[in-house]
Amino acid sequence: MRETFFADLLAQIAERGRALFPGGRRVPLIGHQPDILDLCHALLSRRGEASGVALADQILNIWSQSDSERKKHFLLDLVADFGPLIAQLEAAVTAWTAQQSETALRAIHAAAEPRRQELIRRLNLAPGGTRRLVSMREEIFTHRKAHPELDILDADFVHLFSSWFNRGFLVLRRIDWSTSANILEKIIRYEAVHAIHDWTELRRRIEPEDRRLFAFFHPQMTDEPLIFVEVALTRDIPDSIAPLLAPDRQAISSTEADTAVFYSISNCQEGLRGVSFGNFLIKQVVEDLRRELPNLRTFVTLSPVPGFAKWLDRQRGAAPTWLTPADGEALDTLRQAGWTNNDEERVRLTAALDGAASQYFLAEKNEHQKPVDPVARFHLGNGARLERLNPFGDTSANGLRQSYGLMVNYLYDLKSIERNHEAFAETGEVAASSAVRSKLRSSTASKGISTQTVVA
Amino acid sequence: MRETFFADLLAQIAERGRALFPGGRRVPLIGHQPDILDLCHALLSRRGEASGVALADQILNIWSQSDSERKKHFLLDLVADFGPLIAQLEAAVTAWTAQQSETALRAIHAAAEPRRQELIRRLNLAPGGTRRLVSMREEIFTHRKAHPELDILDADFVHLFSSWFNRGFLVLRRIDWSTSANILEKIIRYEAVHAIHDWTELRRRIEPEDRRLFAFFHPQMTDEPLIFVEVALTRDIPDSIAPLLAPDRQAISSTEADTAVFYSISNCQEGLRGVSFGNFLIKQVVEDLRRELPNLRTFVTLSPVPGFAKWLDRQRGAAPTWLTPADGEALDTLRQAGWTNNDEERVRLTAALDGAASQYFLAEKNEHQKPVDPVARFHLGNGARLERLNPFGDTSANGLRQSYGLMVNYLYDLKSIERNHEAFAETGEVAASSAVRSKLRSSTASKGISTQTVVA
Amino acid sequence: MRETFFADLLAQIAERGRALFPGGRRVPLIGHQPDILDLCHALLSRRGEASGVALADQILNIWSQSDSERKKHFLLDLVADFGPLIAQLEAAVTAWTAQQSETALRAIHAAAEPRRQELIRRLNLAPGGTRRLVSMREEIFTHRKAHPELDILDADFVHLFSSWFNRGFLVLRRIDWSTSANILEKIIRYEAVHAIHDWTELRRRIEPEDRRLFAFFHPQMTDEPLIFVEVALTRDIPDSIAPLLAPDRQAISSTEADTAVFYSISNCQEGLRGVSFGNFLIKQVVEDLRRELPNLRTFVTLSPVPGFAKWLDRQRGAAPTWLTPADGEALDTLRQAGWTNNDEERVRLTAALDGAASQYFLAEKNEHQKPVDPVARFHLGNGARLERLNPFGDTSANGLRQSYGLMVNYLYDLKSIERNHEAFAETGEVAASSAVRSKLRSSTASKGISTQTVVA
Amino acid sequence: MRETFFADLLAQIAERGRALFPGGRRVPLIGHQPDILDLCHALLSRRGEASGVALADQILNIWSQSDSERKKHFLLDLVADFGPLIAQLEAAVTAWTAQQSETALRAIHAAAEPRRQELIRRLNLAPGGTRRLVSMREEIFTHRKAHPELDILDADFVHLFSSWFNRGFLVLRRIDWSTSANILEKIIRYEAVHAIHDWTELRRRIEPEDRRLFAFFHPQMTDEPLIFVEVALTRDIPDSIAPLLAPDRQAISSTEADTAVFYSISNCQEGLRGVSFGNFLIKQVVEDLRRELPNLRTFVTLSPVPGFAKWLDRQRGAAPTWLTPADGEALDTLRQAGWTNNDEERVRLTAALDGAASQYFLAEKNEHQKPVDPVARFHLGNGARLERLNPFGDTSANGLRQSYGLMVNYLYDLKSIERNHEAFAETGEVAASSAVRSKLRSSTASKGISTQTVVA
Repeated sequence: MRETFFADLLAQIAERGRALFPGGRRVPLIGHQPDILDLCHALLSRRGEASGVALADQILNIWSQSDSERKKHFLLDLVADFGPLIAQLEAAVTAWTAQQSETALRAIHAAAEPRRQELIRRLNLAPGGTRRLVSMREEIFTHRKAHPELDILDADFVHLFSSWFNRGFLVLRRIDWSTSANILEKIIRYEAVHAIHDWTELRRRIEPEDRRLFAFFHPQMTDEPLIFVEVALTRDIPDSIAPLLAPDRQAISSTEADTAVFYSISNCQEGLRGVSFGNFLIKQVVEDLRRELPNLRTFVTLSPVPGFAKWLDRQRGAAPTWLTPADGEALDTLRQAGWTNNDEERVRLTAALDGAASQYFLAEKNEHQKPVDPVARFHLGNGARLERLNPFGDTSANGLRQSYGLMVNYLYDLKSIERNHEAFAETGEVAASSAVRSKLRSSTASKGISTQTVVA
Repeated sequence: MRETFFADLLAQIAERGRALFPGGRRVPLIGHQPDILDLCHALLSRRGEASGVALADQILNIWSQSDSERKKHFLLDLVADFGPLIAQLEAAVTAWTAQQSETALRAIHAAAEPRRQELIRRLNLAPGGTRRLVSMREEIFTHRKAHPELDILDADFVHLFSSWFNRGFLVLRRIDWSTSANILEKIIRYEAVHAIHDWTELRRRIEPEDRRLFAFFHPQMTDEPLIFVEVALTRDIPDSIAPLLAPDRQAISSTEADTAVFYSISNCQEGLRGVSFGNFLIKQVVEDLRRELPNLRTFVTLSPVPGFAKWLDRQRGAAPTWLTPADGEALDTLRQAGWTNNDEERVRLTAALDGAASQYFLAEKNEHQKPVDPVARFHLGNGARLERLNPFGDTSANGLRQSYGLMVNYLYDLKSIERNHEAFAETGEVAASSAVRSKLRSSTASKGISTQTVVA
Repeated sequence: MRETFFADLLAQIAERGRALFPGGRRVPLIGHQPDILDLCHALLSRRGEASGVALADQILNIWSQSDSERKKHFLLDLVADFGPLIAQLEAAVTAWTAQQSETALRAIHAAAEPRRQELIRRLNLAPGGTRRLVSMREEIFTHRKAHPELDILDADFVHLFSSWFNRGFLVLRRIDWSTSANILEKIIRYEAVHAIHDWTELRRRIEPEDRRLFAFFHPQMTDEPLIFVEVALTRDIPDSIAPLLAPDRQAISSTEADTAVFYSISNCQEGLRGVSFGNFLIKQVVEDLRRELPNLRTFVTLSPVPGFAKWLDRQRGAAPTWLTPADGEALDTLRQAGWTNNDEERVRLTAALDGAASQYFLAEKNEHQKPVDPVARFHLGNGARLERLNPFGDTSANGLRQSYGLMVNYLYDLKSIERNHEAFAETGEVAASSAVRSKLRSSTASKGISTQTVVA
Repeated sequence: MRETFFADLLAQIAERGRALFPGGRRVPLIGHQPDILDLCHALLSRRGEASGVALADQILNIWSQSDSERKKHFLLDLVADFGPLIAQLEAAVTAWTAQQSETALRAIHAAAEPRRQELIRRLNLAPGGTRRLVSMREEIFTHRKAHPELDILDADFVHLFSSWFNRGFLVLRRIDWSTSANILEKIIRYEAVHAIHDWTELRRRIEPEDRRLFAFFHPQMTDEPLIFVEVALTRDIPDSIAPLLAPDRQAISSTEADTAVFYSISNCQEGLRGVSFGNFLIKQVVEDLRRELPNLRTFVTLSPVPGFAKWLDRQRGAAPTWLTPADGEALDTLRQAGWTNNDEERVRLTAALDGAASQYFLAEKNEHQKPVDPVARFHLGNGARLERLNPFGDTSANGLRQSYGLMVNYLYDLKSIERNHEAFAETGEVAASSAVRSKLRSSTASKGISTQTVVA
């Protein structure tokens, strides 16, 4: 009941929001429009203390009705005019140099904080403020290339959003066919891995008993998912995506499943880029599914390998030592149309792709000594283990283009997540199953690779 | 409907919380208990990135099971061990002294932030983290006198709580007889102005058509009001509290009322002391009541004057010039038992108390050039105006003790709030009605007092 | 808050229902299946008093797993075996004939009630019973033609459903884009007047500020709309449907509208045929819209005329006196493809269609002395007035086929609804505007037609 | 989510209700008040079809503002004026006598239905109609003694309420400390077995982990519990009430409990007397607790024996054969003040009370061959078994007065409920444990008593 009380609470805030922003229409600005920067200074002043909510609302209204050019100028003005108070900072530094006290430290910290941060905090007073600030940050991205000085403003947003969107404030929610259309519509729009083409396809992803979709929400943005993950409940670790998405597949009972497959993870809010939730989302979903379905033993992804095809093309040009002549010959087949249906070549090709893939994941490193594949960095960084390579995992046009059809499974084994994460973070060590490790053609690359027996 | 979706969301988080903390019973710590400081260091380390939720939960569990002595040591350890990174700060200062770049500024700001703040942010990952951190801060108050070094830790909490409890995240909610008992129970407990003795009295404050109670809530503390205000709807500005609270009074229809009287405002969370909501609460309630009941014209308080009796006693000893002999004589009556029923003296006494009260509010100043009365500072600081003095306003034992029965009305006139607030903040100018001003005996004190015609 | 308590209540019942009927899958019947009729007798017996819920559930499970042939036999058995208790009825009649007492009357009423009714009441004990009984009635329709004896069983269902679906138990709800997908999906499926082809079209009907959709629900069937009405808010009474549904039309602000147009009313539950809600739905929506949007002055339909084309074809064969030669000539045009675009003929054709339409609505009567058009009978029976004839109102293929493009407006004028309803019910008098009446070519038909000035 | 949609639904209806009946104040009747009987006739007429909701509301408003005398007359008028249509009934009977067709049967049933029933159904159209009709029936009870002809009207209400409050429409809900105060207040008021004196005592009954309270609600009366049961979770079958209610008792963990004790069942709505829910309530609670707490093995009551003391007093006067001289001597002690503390006598007294109690439950019968104790009839009628006699079970003043302290346990053993119920209903056979049976002094009385081994 406690919660329904709160339901009510939220209903109220939402209504108030709706009253203020009916139908998403622009609120007309009446009469002479005050200068937005003047209003920002007022918001930080005494007047802001008395009339903060109204001022913040006015500023954000002007903002939302400005064109991109005016928005850009406003953002640049925030950088130029609302930095730290330099004179105070100099005084604080001088004081601290004279005597290193806690008080002096605090003075430094206070003076070094750009006034932009307090301004953004006060803008959040406005109805719907959080949501509007998230969209303000999106505008930064449009101009950052041309105006790198906006980076510092972006850092302020990230600092505040990290605090506001602290996982402790987020709510995990299952999305299904009884969810409201305005949220489902956003799931369709935001799905970034395996596109959802229409409502019928969406329904196939959320309604059958062996499918799940979970999203994080923030109390101030109740109809905007922040990130979501799609899950298939299966009886084995799948090695390709097509059967999971097939329109005519037979659903199984959720209690029969022993494996939960995370086959798509999508961030929804461009304006929250850099504020990471994915890590928490997967772990929370693992915990929740475990409680709901005690038969589940294995938690695993079926993941794309976005950079593999390009990398492999480059490698072949360079004729690296790990590429055996036989493998090279097999890989030539990739240039032929219809190679995925060439059953004769399949065995040879599988071996060649396995070899190349293990090289790609285990031996290749970027400048931070991490794998070159971004999806790999995400899951390995979360403490997952590279469990299996699946050549022919995604033979759609897109799958072939980005990875010659290769997909992989990352295994989330709760017992080893912490160790894997630490090793990866410290030394770049890639947790991989012995099966994956055994595909590696070059012995030299095996340094820093942990061997683990599949446990789950 | 959007909101009921979110209701569901919140229900889910609440259930999860309940599962984790069943019945408020202590979660037993099994086996060897790790050191809480080690865990804090771990939470800030790589391990914390992988297992933050679990670590934070473990730390807060150990905390809540510690006795006050161990809690004190932990708090002191936070001060000693989790300050800024001095070496990095020194380097950043050096760099900035060499060249004043934005990058250098950011480095200073980052290095000057005590690591406690990030620690507290990460503790918030735990289920129920926010609530538990608020209660952690309460513990600081217990030890602060003996350990003033805890002030710096307290400042960290205030900094973070100000961001987390930003008004943009709060939800205003009407409390009535259909509110859940666990919340109503807290209203009884937290009422700090006119005590509520039992459920029958509570009901009289929230159920009649001409009574309202509003509270702010935070999404992470859904059954804990943060602050609440009690409102009486009346046909005039009341000059005493007893008729408002009388058990046998006749309620009026809410549509007949033209005045909303804020007769009690109570903060509920000791652990949020210094994070101010009262200002926002009153203004929001004014706005909401306005919308609901367009007949309301006047928004006014009926407020206690907590320091008046003591101040007056001190003044009389000093025989100040503003105290006329006639007034002094009348005030002598205050020493007689039953003076409140002495109808003969009533007129003389009223004049004398009016005179003293106008002096107290308009002429007396503390070291910051603000009135000496804390309630006055709150309402005047919000931009309200001192509207009327009510000798004989509260003739209960408590009322006589603290203010010889004096109560006052502060008027919230939306049109002048901003101006009043600014003048008060800048120069300490006290907005007062001409009626109040006219009571002043000393012409010298009238400097800095604005004259306003009663508008509302 | 009271209501959120109830929300919770309902949530609970729904969960329980879900647990019992997971995923809509058939509950397997284990072992030897008892005879469904034996179970029905048991349900009416002492055993039924002790184990009613379980027995009712078992019976409805067997029912839902039976094929159509077995269902038919069961329905026929209900008619044959569960009628009134004849011997008791005879005794009661004898007693009453001897002495006409209240007790004897009650005995007659009790004995004359078919035991089927008590059986159906007890079947309703099962989880989801109401919904399953509604679908049981649908099966009757399949067999009624071949087995007219089922009519008596159908009457029992209607008697009980009329009590259970009493308007006092129904809840009116606005459906919009934040409604859950499983309900919206049913709106798409059940729309019977102007088909909704996909989710994009649905959205156009419910999301713009000048569109509304309201539905009645029953507490026991919370995700099944019973009946719904689609409303367009406009600035005038529209004379054709296409502009209302145009994908690229401009929405107006809801506060600018002065007219609410009911342009589609659809019953959703075949199994509730004959239990009328439409009357209540329209009146409730009129009341609610009035309260929400005080600017609304006119409440009107834009309705199809389903039988007009066929009727007109028949009439023309018979060459009735009211059909002037000029009109007949104009109507010949209807046989030419593309006549709707023939601007030259439009005036003549309009006159001819107006004449025929006024004859159709005002003069033609069925065997009950009511208009031959079913939609007309519904709205006139509700007390609405035939306000305007709109030739060229629906020039879609379907519109041309059923009514040569004719649409009409029925006006709901609250002040005259009761009078219109009574006159229509008593004498078949058709309330029509003078404009409509003036189109009538035959003076003889004008008997029984009321003349009214347009008020709204 | 489906359910939150419905929550919304209900919220809406509740709001509408609130708008119509603000603050429970009387809606003033303006101008000349029409005759309530005329309105009733109108409601049953054509006018009622058009304006049913408004007419029903008007009638119920007049009703609620009438004094008891006028209410009585209205009720008597309903009996006199709204009975069956006699002429039609006679015709139908004649027709049926001529030929016994289904059609004739239906005509009899229809004509024999008092028009009151349709009138009550139409009154239910009014907002809040159901609730107001329930309270209308309460008025019947006030006058029934003086006007036995009202019985027939009462029967009409029971007939309709039995259909409307069908268990399939009821919702079971747990009541706890987060339930709204307006519902909790009613729990305090309606508790009829062990009075709840204040909110503190209420809290002890609903908040501890080993306490539960469940109530049935109806969708149209969302803040009125219909019936509720209080449950204690324990580790054994308790033999006295005081320890269960002791303010200072230690709660146990709900998972440690193996027994659920129903220690109080209270009907709340006088106006629903005779519409039985208790049977369904207990069985549903047993099922729900089972699911939530699989450790629970035993479901048992701790019940009062309301008629025992009076019965025993009468028996002793008659010196029946089953009363042994030794028992008689022991029972003499009951006349001494403080006998409950007389430890010496306790053994003898226990034996004597056991003997008398077994006689009371097993051998004494009323005119329907059922036990004379009403609580026994309820639980045995539900299929429970008399499990244990507890002399000294309730030594409060009330307990001593009604049963010389005797309490009993009835066991709900799901496996034998149906058999027990049938035997009890058919032959009056009392299911009792062998322990209870063995207390019986008279062998003659043992006929018709089933012996069962304690299973649970």
